Amino acid sequence: MVVTLIQNRNKISKKAMEEVMGFFEPDLLLIENSLKKHFASHISFVNQVSGHILFAGGKRLRPLLTVCAARLCGFEGEDIYDLAAVPEYLHAASLLHDDVVDGGEKRRGKTPAYKLWGNSAAVLVGDFMYARAIELATRFEDIRIARAISKTVALMAEGEIIQLLHAKVPSFDEETYFKVVDRKTASLISTSCRIGAYLAKGSRDKVDAISGYGLLVGQAFQLVDDLLDYMADSEELGKAVGTDLAEGKLTLPIVVGLEKASPEQRERLKAILSQGYVTPSEFKWVKEVLLETGAIKYTYTRAKGLINSACERLDIFPHSEIMENLKVLAGYVLERRK
Amino acid sequence: MVVTLIQNRNKISKKAMEEVMGFFEPDLLLIENSLKKHFASHISFVNQVSGHILFAGGKRLRPLLTVCAARLCGFEGEDIYDLAAVPEYLHAASLLHDDVVDGGEKRRGKTPAYKLWGNSAAVLVGDFMYARAIELATRFEDIRIARAISKTVALMAEGEIIQLLHAKVPSFDEETYFKVVDRKTASLISTSCRIGAYLAKGSRDKVDAISGYGLLVGQAFQLVDDLLDYMADSEELGKAVGTDLAEGKLTLPIVVGLEKASPEQRERLKAILSQGYVTPSEFKWVKEVLLETGAIKYTYTRAKGLINSACERLDIFPHSEIMENLKVLAGYVLERRK
Repeated sequence: MVVTLIQNRNKISKKAMEEVMGFFEPDLLLIENSLKKHFASHISFVNQVSGHILFAGGKRLRPLLTVCAARLCGFEGEDIYDLAAVPEYLHAASLLHDDVVDGGEKRRGKTPAYKLWGNSAAVLVGDFMYARAIELATRFEDIRIARAISKTVALMAEGEIIQLLHAKVPSFDEETYFKVVDRKTASLISTSCRIGAYLAKGSRDKVDAISGYGLLVGQAFQLVDDLLDYMADSEELGKAVGTDLAEGKLTLPIVVGLEKASPEQRERLKAILSQGYVTPSEFKWVKEVLLETGAIKYTYTRAKGLINSACERLDIFPHSEIMENLKVLAGYVLERRK
Repeated sequence: MVVTLIQNRNKISKKAMEEVMGFFEPDLLLIENSLKKHFASHISFVNQVSGHILFAGGKRLRPLLTVCAARLCGFEGEDIYDLAAVPEYLHAASLLHDDVVDGGEKRRGKTPAYKLWGNSAAVLVGDFMYARAIELATRFEDIRIARAISKTVALMAEGEIIQLLHAKVPSFDEETYFKVVDRKTASLISTSCRIGAYLAKGSRDKVDAISGYGLLVGQAFQLVDDLLDYMADSEELGKAVGTDLAEGKLTLPIVVGLEKASPEQRERLKAILSQGYVTPSEFKWVKEVLLETGAIKYTYTRAKGLINSACERLDIFPHSEIMENLKVLAGYVLERRK
C-alpha cells in the first residue's frame, strides 16, 4: 500500500531530516528576521493582514532555496537574507489572492484573510505584497533578478487562470496539468533558486542547474500536495483533506484516475468533481478508486522520479555539505505531511 | 457659478486642445500599437479580459506623458513607445482590482470585467497585467525604471487601502485626502513622466522637474475627477454621476463641504455618506450644499493652482513645442469632461 509506503519512508528519513534542519537553523532564523524587517507598511492594517499570512507557520522552503543556491554558487554576503524574503512575499501574496479565488475555508490551520477582513482587503494587501517584493528585488542592482521575479508573477497568475478555466470541467490531460503546475508552483520555486544564483554571479551552467533543480522539486512538491489531499491528516495539514476534490481541482491523481477508471467509475468521478462539494462517503469512494486504479501510486512514483532528477542536476557542483543537504531537502518534499 | 465657469473654460480651450491633440496624434497611434503588441498572453481568455479594459477608450494620458518626458529630455529612439505601455497596463490592472473592491457598476461606459467574468478572473488578470507591465519595464536595462514602477504599484495599493479603511467613516482631513490622492492617482502619473526621463538619461534636475509636473498634474486630475462626480453628464462620463457619493468616498468637495457646512447639514451629509447609496433628491441636496459652502469652487481653484505649479516646473527646460504642448495638456486636465 502506498500509504504504508509513505508512512515507512517518513520514519526512515526523520533523523536525516532533523539533522538537515539543524544545519539550516541559523539560516532559517536570519530568514525570519528578514521577513519581519521588510514587510512593514506605514499602514498598520496592511501589516495586520500580511502578518496573518506571512507568520502562520510557512515552511520557508523558497527563501531557504534562495540562500542555498547563492551559497552553492559561492556567495558569502549577508544580504542574501534580504533577497530571500522576496519569494516568500510573492508566495504569501499569491495565497491571499488564491484564497479569494478558490474560496478556501482554511489556510495553514487558520481562517483565511479574506474571511476575516473581506475580499477587498485580501486583494489590495496581496497587490501591496507583490509590489513590495518586486521593489525589494530591484534593490540588488541586477536587472535579471527583477525580470525573473516579474516573469514568475505573470506565470503564477496564468497558472491560476488556466486552473480556473478548467475548474469543474474534467477535461484535463497530463500535459495541461503540468502546464498549470509549472506556472502555479514550480516557477516560483525555480526562481527562488535562480535569483540566489544570480546574486552570487553564478556561471550560466550553474544558474541553469540550480534553477532546474528548483523546477523539478517544485513539480514534485505539487504532486505531493495533490496526494496529501487524500492521504494527510486534516489537523496536521492545516486544512481539511478532500478540499481539492470538493473544489473540482484537476490534480494528477484525478487526471490519471479518470484515464484508468472504468466507464461507470469515470462518470461518477466527473459528477463528483463538478458538483462543488464532496460528502465523506464520496471522498472515501474516490480515494478507493484512485488507489485501485494505481493513480495514487503513479503520482507518488512520478514525484520520486522528479526528485531523483532534481538531485542529479546538483552533480555539476563540487561536493559540499550544502549540496548534500539540498538533496536531503528534496527528499523531504516527498515525505512531508503538510 | 462654477458649473458655468467650467463650461465656458471648456469652450475657450477647445481649439487649443484640438491643435495639441493633432500634434500628439502620431504618438497616440504608436502608443496604441505598442499596447496591442505587448499585452498578449498565450491564454486567449486573459486577452479577452485585459482587452476589455485596455481598449475601452482610455485617454492614454499616462503613456503620452512617458513619451513627452523622454522627448523633453532629448530622447529620440522608437522604443519609448514600448516603455509607454507600462503605465497604461498598470493603470488598467488597478482599474480591474478597484472595480472588484468598489463594486463599481460602470467603467468607461461598459460593464466592468468583474461583472462579466467574476471577481476571480478580474483579480487574476489584474495580477497578470501588473506583472507583465513590470516585466516589460525590466527590459530597458535600467533598474531605476523597474524600481520606480514597483514602488508605485505598492503606493497605489496603499492608497486604495487607506480609502477602504475610511470608506463610510467620514473622518477625513485634507492631509489624509492628499495622502490617498498622491498614492492612488498622482504617483502613477508622476512615475509615467519619471520613467520617460530615466530612459532618456535625463539629469537629476530634469527628472525631478518632469516628475514634479506629473505629480501636480496627477493631483489636479483627481480633484477634477471628484468634481465630475457632481458636475459631469453621466453619458459623457461613462458612469453615473454621484457614484463616489453613493460609495461614501471622501472626495475633496466632501472633505471641504463637511468642514464648512452647518451642524445640521454636516449630520445629514455624514448620514448620506455612510448609508451605501444615494437617492436623486439626496444627490441634488448634497450638490447644493457643496456649491453653497464653496466646496466646489475651492476644489476647482485648488486644481487650477496645482496645474499652474505643474506648468512652472517645466520652465527649467529650454523652450520647445513639446514643452508648450505639455502645458496645454495640463490645462486640459482642468477642462476635461470625462
